[in-house]
Amino acid sequence: MFFGRSIGTKPCRTLREVFKSVEEGSAQYGIVPAENSLEGSINQTYDLLLEASLKISGEVKVRVRHCLLALPGARLEDLNAVYSHPQALAQCAGFLQKLDLETIPAYDTAGSAKMLIEKQLNAGAIASERAAEIYGLQVLRKGIEDFPENFTRFFVLAKNDDSPTGRDRTSIAFATTHTPGSLHRALGELASRQINLTKIESRPIRGTPWEYNFFIDFEGHHNDVVVAEAINALQTSTAMLKILGSYPRAD
Amino acid sequence: MFFGRSIGTKPCRTLREVFKSVEEGSAQYGIVPAENSLEGSINQTYDLLLEASLKISGEVKVRVRHCLLALPGARLEDLNAVYSHPQALAQCAGFLQKLDLETIPAYDTAGSAKMLIEKQLNAGAIASERAAEIYGLQVLRKGIEDFPENFTRFFVLAKNDDSPTGRDRTSIAFATTHTPGSLHRALGELASRQINLTKIESRPIRGTPWEYNFFIDFEGHHNDVVVAEAINALQTSTAMLKILGSYPRAD
Repeated sequence: MFFGRSIGTKPCRTLREVFKSVEEGSAQYGIVPAENSLEGSINQTYDLLLEASLKISGEVKVRVRHCLLALPGARLEDLNAVYSHPQALAQCAGFLQKLDLETIPAYDTAGSAKMLIEKQLNAGAIASERAAEIYGLQVLRKGIEDFPENFTRFFVLAKNDDSPTGRDRTSIAFATTHTPGSLHRALGELASRQINLTKIESRPIRGTPWEYNFFIDFEGHHNDVVVAEAINALQTSTAMLKILGSYPRAD
Repeated sequence: MFFGRSIGTKPCRTLREVFKSVEEGSAQYGIVPAENSLEGSINQTYDLLLEASLKISGEVKVRVRHCLLALPGARLEDLNAVYSHPQALAQCAGFLQKLDLETIPAYDTAGSAKMLIEKQLNAGAIASERAAEIYGLQVLRKGIEDFPENFTRFFVLAKNDDSPTGRDRTSIAFATTHTPGSLHRALGELASRQINLTKIESRPIRGTPWEYNFFIDFEGHHNDVVVAEAINALQTSTAMLKILGSYPRAD
């Protein structure tokens, strides 16, 4: 209950569609996955954040519990394949290896559950318990992920970010200049001000092979004096800098 | 022709199988993708490098040229879907959007080509020109990738890495200690010795949410005096360090 009250929802087929809905105003907020604690960053989210005119205005961390679903009456030993999103298949790789079932990638977890019902497939789907309820499927096994410490961090997108709360995080993107040690110098603007870096991610710059944009998260709000000073210093020492947003920390 | 002569090849279904084949000695070398200049790092390769007892003994950069393949006689306007590896679908997203065809993820590009023939599907597959020759398919369109500057960098795996050539690169993995500024200090061991960092990648530490291992590439060989000094210094200032290998630079 990030929003503190129930709100209307609008499902989107792609991450790009989520960004577009908020940009065009057909949704006030957008929710996109940023990283999973086992599989790492969701690359497309980072690429879209760089293009978009939106801000990260919040973060939510959700515990992931995968279930193996099948048609009502189906037995585990009769399944011939398991469908799911590649991330979910990866997170349950150990469980699936033991079963020795063919794994088939699908667009999303809920979509793979829906497909079992629609096509009446003699197969399994990895999805949530909620998906089993929605599509009238049977839960064959619960909590089949290889590591119980499985969390996904989501970003809440909006046209503007939030005011400081005293327990904030800021996300920025930047490109370094073409000089040796430039990333080290950039991080030095945070370290010298005792600003705690909580994440760094690199993404290729499209059209310029072997050059990268960096995405960093650190504690503090871009309106805090010391953070504003660090961002100013970074702005003069980097080739590109974009403030993606400041928002209350979820932990 | 990385090896300078023709050698026997052994196809593997998964990256894990490539690592295993070299570890068990059924293959002398293994070739795995490390990163694509549009889509970024191949996460599983990095995760496997950390577990494996192998070394990176070489790198190869290959220009990617995707083709749209179909059954002989098929016409573009008659296709009902396009199959390929999610990376290839992502790299041709612009082209596919214009065609307004359903995209269906598959395990690999060549495998999606093979499937068209085997199942006689009225669909397209994104794969190489070579795959069209092998499976007797028609090339409907060549070079359909959104960015022509599309390269994939591969690692050559072996039981041991190479001796210095004077134009080498070294890859290492490390985990920082839990103190603010620890990544900045670690990179300082390279910067202060004028060692040029060419890539940094972070991957989540499994079972410990929101903590990361770092993978860095830099110029030089781990037997070079200045690089050996930097690695020694890093070893004392990091919580974990693994030398993944030194090898001749491909560029």
